[in-house]
Amino acid sequence: MAEFHFEKLVIVGVGLIGGSLACALRRGGARGRIVGVGRTTAAVQRALELGVIDAGAGLDDAALPALLAGADLVLLATPVAQIGPVLTRIAPHLPVDAVLTDAGSTKVEPVAAARAALGARFTRFVPAHPIAGGERSGVDAAVPDLFEGCNVMLCPLPETRPEAIMRVAGMWRAAGARIREMPPERHDRVFSAVSHLPHLLAFAFLDMLLDSDDRELKFDLAGGGFRDFTRIAASNPEMWRDICLSNRRALLADIDAFAAVLEHVRAAIDAGDGAALDPLFDRARTARAGWGRTYAPNGGGK
Amino acid sequence: MAEFHFEKLVIVGVGLIGGSLACALRRGGARGRIVGVGRTTAAVQRALELGVIDAGAGLDDAALPALLAGADLVLLATPVAQIGPVLTRIAPHLPVDAVLTDAGSTKVEPVAAARAALGARFTRFVPAHPIAGGERSGVDAAVPDLFEGCNVMLCPLPETRPEAIMRVAGMWRAAGARIREMPPERHDRVFSAVSHLPHLLAFAFLDMLLDSDDRELKFDLAGGGFRDFTRIAASNPEMWRDICLSNRRALLADIDAFAAVLEHVRAAIDAGDGAALDPLFDRARTARAGWGRTYAPNGGGK
Repeated sequence: MAEFHFEKLVIVGVGLIGGSLACALRRGGARGRIVGVGRTTAAVQRALELGVIDAGAGLDDAALPALLAGADLVLLATPVAQIGPVLTRIAPHLPVDAVLTDAGSTKVEPVAAARAALGARFTRFVPAHPIAGGERSGVDAAVPDLFEGCNVMLCPLPETRPEAIMRVAGMWRAAGARIREMPPERHDRVFSAVSHLPHLLAFAFLDMLLDSDDRELKFDLAGGGFRDFTRIAASNPEMWRDICLSNRRALLADIDAFAAVLEHVRAAIDAGDGAALDPLFDRARTARAGWGRTYAPNGGGK
Repeated sequence: MAEFHFEKLVIVGVGLIGGSLACALRRGGARGRIVGVGRTTAAVQRALELGVIDAGAGLDDAALPALLAGADLVLLATPVAQIGPVLTRIAPHLPVDAVLTDAGSTKVEPVAAARAALGARFTRFVPAHPIAGGERSGVDAAVPDLFEGCNVMLCPLPETRPEAIMRVAGMWRAAGARIREMPPERHDRVFSAVSHLPHLLAFAFLDMLLDSDDRELKFDLAGGGFRDFTRIAASNPEMWRDICLSNRRALLADIDAFAAVLEHVRAAIDAGDGAALDPLFDRARTARAGWGRTYAPNGGGK
């Protein structure tokens, strides 16, 4: 891994992502100061106890301006709806040349929020999304190897400063990640399909089950297929509510496309038309089995 | 594990389930003869090569009657649509007191097919469903510990002979499984919800993805959530086509219930109504996380 240096890294939201990045940089030999900021003082207390950060404060603490002073790099690892408000709150206390980035699972709406909050400083904001995480959350789940071999999507705008992009890319490479670049709109369409929709379907499936008869027996008899299919429904609800709302446009289109396929499958089952189901199941199986053979463990995130 | 004895066990369909049962019984010390029957001779050849069965033949082989002679126990481990035709084909060659059972994932329709095929001998047919398997299929995937700690559902009818039930229960216990009993209708509703619907949703999700723009990039960037959510879409398409058609009634009701929840979620996202999403995601997460804490590895199947 490449060496990576900073004077003071501020991580807003020291949960699984923010905490794991701090651990990864520390393990990689980074000597700069790592400061954690949480929505409340209590939220950073645990990160301090675990030694993940060197100092910390709540967003509303009087100590916040002093903590932010001299920061050269700031990572927002909060639910996406907080990116705008947090930037508005902290920007006045940051050096003008600080590089800012985020770890949000959507990009179009955070980019708009950052542009509104940062004004001229928006050129130093590098929209980013590490493809890592999973259903665990909180700093207690943080591990230094979370990003090893993972993709980190960077979605810079035409006005984003190249040196800011290089700096954020260097940070993630130091944590073991690979860098990919694409525009925010394309990012949001891709991750709506491969991540946001599956999460939403898993949540909806659980809700459907919870409203059904015999639910206790069903949970009792559920097996390994259920286990894997629903794993992502144990994910942080607030984070996923924000993602669904933030990526509304792409997600609504994908929900509709999925509902159309489901209706097609339903009609085939209703008609007892196995010949209509065969090609659908066949090509799904072929695609998934092929993906499974080429998918590198941890290659696309956890 | 309890001791289990048989003179000649016939397994029709020596794939993952039938092959694993043969391996399990052999490992448990069973000394009887294990005979495999496949749709084609080629299908049993591999099982013979692997030493999973002692002898084998295709369903249409001239050698079939001799192979079936003296059988005291017969397991049908084929896709569910074949249970009726296979019973019709083999019953004339079986001793009248042979105990018959199946391993189908649905029970109402196989029970009706068995009743029609077997006539008076239906009292010796024990409808059964081992909750094991996964996306692997074929005898090469067979392992002796597949059923250890798994549930095997028995769905006997009022007229099913108690000694036949005991014999089939003994067979599965010898393979390490736990026995649960319930009526066929309840079985089909429960497994429609916790197994058949998730498989169908995973297949439909893959099909939706395959029809979308940027599909190669999407597969390239898909991560661990996608991996687990779609694992079951790599399952045997023929088996799942049969299950969908066989459990049509329960599955259509569950598809409709799911589609209603999805429509509700869609409306909330469209309206930007996070307050409507919160309780849905919260209770789904709570239920899934709680299930994950109590679910015994392998306790509900693989």
